[in-house]
Amino acid sequence: MILEKNYIEQDCPSDVFMKVLKGKCKTTLIVLIKKGINRFGEMKRTLPTISERMLAKQLDELEADGILNRTVFAEVPLKVEYALTEYGETLYPIVKEIRRWGHIHQEKQLK
Amino acid sequence: MILEKNYIEQDCPSDVFMKVLKGKCKTTLIVLIKKGINRFGEMKRTLPTISERMLAKQLDELEADGILNRTVFAEVPLKVEYALTEYGETLYPIVKEIRRWGHIHQEKQLK
Repeated sequence: MILEKNYIEQDCPSDVFMKVLKGKCKTTLIVLIKKGINRFGEMKRTLPTISERMLAKQLDELEADGILNRTVFAEVPLKVEYALTEYGETLYPIVKEIRRWGHIHQEKQLK
Repeated sequence: MILEKNYIEQDCPSDVFMKVLKGKCKTTLIVLIKKGINRFGEMKRTLPTISERMLAKQLDELEADGILNRTVFAEVPLKVEYALTEYGETLYPIVKEIRRWGHIHQEKQLK
């Protein structure tokens, strides 16, 4: 039974990836943070249609899943920066490919 | 306003990809079908822990999203085969990468 369980878990390995990244604009947030757009206000300005509440939810989930680190600097006003963790960095090459695919198919849909 | 809307849609292009593939074992089903394991019974035997109902749901959704074609052959007993559409084929290279990532991180978790 243990062998069978392992077999199955190894057979749907992508489900973890999909679970971690299925939230609204999460792949975009990973790209923005990688590019240095790593503060809440900057991200909000870059993605004007996502609400502050939704943006905060996505960032919280990515942090909880070990994709992002959140660093609070003891400054006035308070400065908070996000960065990809080592684990988050491993997602980045695939995220870029998914975005490329998305752009191509968006163009197809617009034709 | 139209420009802004387009900008946003182009800025989170991956959301379509994630939406289409977030269901249970969907990426695995794409790989199985690509390898010729393209009948319901074969897929069920390859993925013994997924219920028949769940498997049928995933296949229906992939068909509805234009990823799979379902062909019914007029034979007794009835023969039904699934194949990737042209659109589904465009997902395959990325799906392979996601699975590779999943395998690596599954191994890390098992350590």
